[in-house]
Amino acid sequence: MVEPFRRKVNYYETDRMNIVHHSNYARYLEEARLDYMIKVGIAYDELEKKGIIIPVLELHDRYIKSIGFGDIIEVHVHIVKLTAVRFRVKYEIYNVETGELVHTAETAHAFVDDKFAPLNLKRHFPDEYATFEKYLELDYNNEA
Amino acid sequence: MVEPFRRKVNYYETDRMNIVHHSNYARYLEEARLDYMIKVGIAYDELEKKGIIIPVLELHDRYIKSIGFGDIIEVHVHIVKLTAVRFRVKYEIYNVETGELVHTAETAHAFVDDKFAPLNLKRHFPDEYATFEKYLELDYNNEA
Amino acid sequence: MVEPFRRKVNYYETDRMNIVHHSNYARYLEEARLDYMIKVGIAYDELEKKGIIIPVLELHDRYIKSIGFGDIIEVHVHIVKLTAVRFRVKYEIYNVETGELVHTAETAHAFVDDKFAPLNLKRHFPDEYATFEKYLELDYNNEA
Amino acid sequence: MVEPFRRKVNYYETDRMNIVHHSNYARYLEEARLDYMIKVGIAYDELEKKGIIIPVLELHDRYIKSIGFGDIIEVHVHIVKLTAVRFRVKYEIYNVETGELVHTAETAHAFVDDKFAPLNLKRHFPDEYATFEKYLELDYNNEA
Repeated sequence: MVEPFRRKVNYYETDRMNIVHHSNYARYLEEARLDYMIKVGIAYDELEKKGIIIPVLELHDRYIKSIGFGDIIEVHVHIVKLTAVRFRVKYEIYNVETGELVHTAETAHAFVDDKFAPLNLKRHFPDEYATFEKYLELDYNNEA
Repeated sequence: MVEPFRRKVNYYETDRMNIVHHSNYARYLEEARLDYMIKVGIAYDELEKKGIIIPVLELHDRYIKSIGFGDIIEVHVHIVKLTAVRFRVKYEIYNVETGELVHTAETAHAFVDDKFAPLNLKRHFPDEYATFEKYLELDYNNEA
Repeated sequence: MVEPFRRKVNYYETDRMNIVHHSNYARYLEEARLDYMIKVGIAYDELEKKGIIIPVLELHDRYIKSIGFGDIIEVHVHIVKLTAVRFRVKYEIYNVETGELVHTAETAHAFVDDKFAPLNLKRHFPDEYATFEKYLELDYNNEA
Repeated sequence: MVEPFRRKVNYYETDRMNIVHHSNYARYLEEARLDYMIKVGIAYDELEKKGIIIPVLELHDRYIKSIGFGDIIEVHVHIVKLTAVRFRVKYEIYNVETGELVHTAETAHAFVDDKFAPLNLKRHFPDEYATFEKYLELDYNNEA
């Protein structure tokens, strides 16, 4: 199991409703996903150097409880689907102080080359693919 | 039919992939949704003054084509579901120059009061509810 | 005289103090500066295509009055200094409804090539330099 | 001496120039300033609860070297001026890997109450004022 990502909510991420603006969650998810990739040995800047680009195809956020300035959040990351050219990630965000689940999310990604053409990771980068496969949690379901 | 929302993509919205960072779409959708609400006569700042707060419960983005600095986008907004306490909105974003559909999205919202307690809009604000109902496009399906 | 830039303050630009977060002004200034450059005939994306990159060297913001969600602002832009390799811009931001001056600012910029090496615009791009020179307001002083 | 603030540069903070967009520095400075206030015992959320609001009056950024995705930065914070109603802060940002000074900045702030009226901190909150005074570095000059 990969250690979850922690960070504090910044003042500038709040809005006049006095809670984190909903557009920031995509950023928290990205931070957690890139942190996860470092932890499992496929740091994204290394992948980019090899010509592997990973755009976001889809994003699904479910806002369960609001969070605010100074709150500490913990983001759990799970690779839940993998093909030679795509993968999906699920996330849960917890408020560390209260222990409450405040957010769940899912993102879908493609592997593309530096011209944005589809890239078969399994064929062209078998080592990197093997890492994705090793951490794949096929039966993971955060909505159960 | 309500006139779609137009705006230009800003330099600061791009990332080092040379495209708009995916977290900005939630902001484009918010701009378009609030513009739509002004156009149909339920400006959000007026609602807030009456104690009607409308947080986002859910966000679903589908990134179809990338857009970049200087592109003009047009956002179409549709209220597709409405109950006394909730509603859902669908969106399509077009690249004006190419005419291409670059993004579809859906958001879910609740009506709450200024203590974030659920608010029955139909009962407590029948006029505002009537406006939502008037613009409801029940059979709208942007994924057809 | 170049027509000032107008735009509306977005919800997501406010913070929990219920005013625009101070980091957004750098973005308003960039929007206004790039709009100004289009209006005078040196659109920034065209310059980039020619290999002229214009990073920010310095930014000075003076926050005079706060602005909030829904306010319309007007940004006045003035090129106040120009050398072969650098220029400076001054700005005033007005709240359109109240007519009040809410912000003044100044930015300093360099011309660099796509390797970030200093670029002598006057020598290598005399036409573009001439446009900067034509709009230069040498004796402009927004702090008088 | 207060321990400097460290953080990593996020992907979403880069722009298509492949460097951190200049508007993000105001956010790094805010993070570092609020972290400093926690470390010296005047956490900003505690001040807000007491009715002490601290808006930004002025911001001055000097961009010396660019930073990019994945870089670790260290922000040094210094209170350099203090009156009963205002204070100024200076900052240096270093790239931890290279040791280079990449940015210097200065911000000016006022103490105001929750109606945004000027607040004499020295008179009304002598303990908080004493903390600011204790950490005041009167002769600090980061431009020497």
